[in-house]
Amino acid sequence: MTNKIFTISREYCSGGRTVGEMLAKKLGIPLYDKEFVDAMAQECGFSHEFIEEIGEYATVTNSFLFSIAVSTHMDGSTNMITAADRLYACQANYIQELAEKGPCVIVGRCADYILRDDPNAVHAFLYADFKQRISHMNANGLSEKEAAKLLKEKDGRRRVYYKHYTGRNWGEPQNYDICLNTARLGLEKTTDILASMA
Amino acid sequence: MTNKIFTISREYCSGGRTVGEMLAKKLGIPLYDKEFVDAMAQECGFSHEFIEEIGEYATVTNSFLFSIAVSTHMDGSTNMITAADRLYACQANYIQELAEKGPCVIVGRCADYILRDDPNAVHAFLYADFKQRISHMNANGLSEKEAAKLLKEKDGRRRVYYKHYTGRNWGEPQNYDICLNTARLGLEKTTDILASMA
Repeated sequence: MTNKIFTISREYCSGGRTVGEMLAKKLGIPLYDKEFVDAMAQECGFSHEFIEEIGEYATVTNSFLFSIAVSTHMDGSTNMITAADRLYACQANYIQELAEKGPCVIVGRCADYILRDDPNAVHAFLYADFKQRISHMNANGLSEKEAAKLLKEKDGRRRVYYKHYTGRNWGEPQNYDICLNTARLGLEKTTDILASMA
Repeated sequence: MTNKIFTISREYCSGGRTVGEMLAKKLGIPLYDKEFVDAMAQECGFSHEFIEEIGEYATVTNSFLFSIAVSTHMDGSTNMITAADRLYACQANYIQELAEKGPCVIVGRCADYILRDDPNAVHAFLYADFKQRISHMNANGLSEKEAAKLLKEKDGRRRVYYKHYTGRNWGEPQNYDICLNTARLGLEKTTDILASMA
């Protein structure tokens, strides 16, 4: 039985969700990925659509729209708290609670940063060659142009979100214990390597 | 018996040489690192000092000093070939010969790029937290300030060298199959993970 908490950060369409599932199954520990959506809806009262759209992506709309509280300081400056900030704080609390409860696999949501000082955490970044990800999406019915646009947009919004809340550069090896190229290794080997760290 | 060729790129003082040695020993295959110096001296006639200084570091002196041939094209433009370019070409040939000979571990020298299309090659990048590398160098008698300066200089020169000859960004996960944080994993676990890919 492992005592590890695995955080999996991943490029869009690199197989991160699937590896998370395979790893959790292999080690017999719970997985948290889409599960966040229900938990955040229940714990913090956000809508499912809002959590899916903003839960780990920088907003593409004007963040002022999401403003829910403006506080004025003694010096007259103001501090805007957006709904996205509230959701981040809610997720961060929830991730810390999960880590205290016991071993698990957490996909995305800046969990690597939130649990950066947890000695039981293993932080992994999964990525794949751009071309391989494109061809995977081709197989799912998208044209090459559409797939390339979607990949760049999704990764770009994750990068901005991560930078905003952590101050770090998303996908920079120094943030993680291990980075694995799923296109070169395959999902099974990727899972095996991660499981060997349990 | 493995049929793999391991290329190990590494941050300065991250334990790359040691992991290379441990991996080669574990798999019973040859290691090429400092061995390049003798081979390049013998095959291409460069001095040991020159190979150690320029074999994988961008030069800090004026590259014009190393100019050994200037060819003039039909249109009047000139093409300068430096001794550093000659050494790179010589090393690249040698690395391809080594890969054809059979399984081995090759440390540094842009081997990941030179063997990027070799289906038997596993490309690894080893890195470690800056603070951990500093304290390792402290233990070897350098002050914190001296250590930080040396680390930045060595990594910086490797980065420039790599960019110059490959067009890629050194240490960017997409160039490698696997990236391992030796400070977090330890050298033994790092070696085990790599060996599991044989």
